[in-house]
Amino acid sequence: MITKESIEAAYVRIRPYVHRTPVMTSSSIDEIAGCSIYFKCENLQNVGAFKARGAMNAALSLSESERAKGIATHSSGNHAQAVARAAKILKTQAHIVMPRRAPQIKKKGVEGYGGKIYECEPNLQSRETTLAEVIKKTGATEIHPFNNYRVMEGQATAALELIEDVSDLDYIVAPVGGGGLLSGTLLAAKYFSPKTQVIAGEPAGADDAFRSMQSGKIEQSQSNTIADGLLTSLGDKTFPVIRDNVKEIITVTDDEIIAAMRLVWERLKMIVEPSGAVPFAAVLKAKEKFKGKKVGIIFSGGNVDLERVGQLFSK
Amino acid sequence: MITKESIEAAYVRIRPYVHRTPVMTSSSIDEIAGCSIYFKCENLQNVGAFKARGAMNAALSLSESERAKGIATHSSGNHAQAVARAAKILKTQAHIVMPRRAPQIKKKGVEGYGGKIYECEPNLQSRETTLAEVIKKTGATEIHPFNNYRVMEGQATAALELIEDVSDLDYIVAPVGGGGLLSGTLLAAKYFSPKTQVIAGEPAGADDAFRSMQSGKIEQSQSNTIADGLLTSLGDKTFPVIRDNVKEIITVTDDEIIAAMRLVWERLKMIVEPSGAVPFAAVLKAKEKFKGKKVGIIFSGGNVDLERVGQLFSK
Repeated sequence: MITKESIEAAYVRIRPYVHRTPVMTSSSIDEIAGCSIYFKCENLQNVGAFKARGAMNAALSLSESERAKGIATHSSGNHAQAVARAAKILKTQAHIVMPRRAPQIKKKGVEGYGGKIYECEPNLQSRETTLAEVIKKTGATEIHPFNNYRVMEGQATAALELIEDVSDLDYIVAPVGGGGLLSGTLLAAKYFSPKTQVIAGEPAGADDAFRSMQSGKIEQSQSNTIADGLLTSLGDKTFPVIRDNVKEIITVTDDEIIAAMRLVWERLKMIVEPSGAVPFAAVLKAKEKFKGKKVGIIFSGGNVDLERVGQLFSK
Repeated sequence: MITKESIEAAYVRIRPYVHRTPVMTSSSIDEIAGCSIYFKCENLQNVGAFKARGAMNAALSLSESERAKGIATHSSGNHAQAVARAAKILKTQAHIVMPRRAPQIKKKGVEGYGGKIYECEPNLQSRETTLAEVIKKTGATEIHPFNNYRVMEGQATAALELIEDVSDLDYIVAPVGGGGLLSGTLLAAKYFSPKTQVIAGEPAGADDAFRSMQSGKIEQSQSNTIADGLLTSLGDKTFPVIRDNVKEIITVTDDEIIAAMRLVWERLKMIVEPSGAVPFAAVLKAKEKFKGKKVGIIFSGGNVDLERVGQLFSK
């Protein structure tokens, strides 16, 4: 299980291998949003996303004999690069199952770290079957993108750093896909800044976490959004943490995501990917709630296929 | 004329009104370039470009009675916003002559600061005629985009800060359009870090500065490049400073500019405009020259029409 101490241990464990990312502010964005926003820039993290944290923590937690046989995962993107990078640092092999339609930039990233890619169909069954075959053949250990306590602890360190850097946050807003970052953020706030409330942003076109909170069980994602990092459903390890701790889940449309992303590109001059702009879109949508508050926002990643950008912004 | 003291005075004068921009580094970019690069992030400057410095210095140097009648300029973009912003801060009116085809984001920026726009044809004669009419009508003082000593001193402060932050730079590479930033950079290096050599990057499709160094007189720009901030020819105040001090001018094609810009977007996760990527393109082109050196690069601006981005990166 995850405790205050296990998050602190994860932080110490991964510290030599990941960036302590900066926290950015912008007076013009604060004016537009009507609150004071502190952007935790995980888009500037190694591999361009917070995923470097969880994958590194999980890989460093393996035994020597496990590590020698390699690590494996299925991922639509940033986690894939994170696992490949962890394997390279630890001098072992990464085996990555990726859907065919995953962004080219993310595939190139995996190969750049020496990871071996196994293509599958873009559905959970194909991912899992392909991964099971790879693991059977290689003896590699799976590092799940989110449903893994070591991964969740690693992701918690982003919020831990944000809390260390900015005191008295009223809110932290994180995106939710499989729930690794959100559950880690919830536990970091609970242990290190109990007065800070954690809210999630979720694409309306993949609002399974929102529906899961209402039904009390894990609902399946419909995967109908440009936020390609948030297409997965919650897992049995992330779901209870989210159910018991999240203050609210705010859903946003793709148009709202693009508008938020555009503001970040234009005003902060920073590249954030659609999934990473979801929490900011949620804050802009629920302005009244955040009015005058101190709000931490986790920019989860910055990996964008630049060929697709014109389409996004051409409306 | 411009002296060490007048640059220091400009720095003190504008300090309350402009950002001290950060200097960024990237190990993956250093690996690709084969040298240690320090990016001076003027894309994070107010109005998204170094132009805020020169315009502010010039406006602050006016007498009270001059200031009251307003300030005016012709500009294809960032300088326009900079003058509009300076006017707003000093509670006077900005009159801005802009070519019709100037990027929409830059026009919106001017209007956002309360500047009044006068459209003209995209050639020097139309700009100057229109501006002369505006000045005749309003009594406003012209703040030329580059051919003005107060503007040049203001632009010099970017390199001054870079030199303060990074000691022992072998090179500083700046873009050259009208030569305001380049001449300021040359004088800052001369006075504050005489061992640092200054090199300019220039688009091959607007290589008038390169040709001017060869012919010994001011040549006209052919304006055939995507680097829309660098279309102008040198002025009689910037030309001699550049002629007497610049080490070399390296010209780069639009493809090289786009490739450099893409690397910045993908690796640094920062938005830099085509003109701002020109010096980095020059360093990538002349790798042997910069091999193993400490190189400062001025990211001159970050204002990009996002609608056009897809086209740029779709090749």
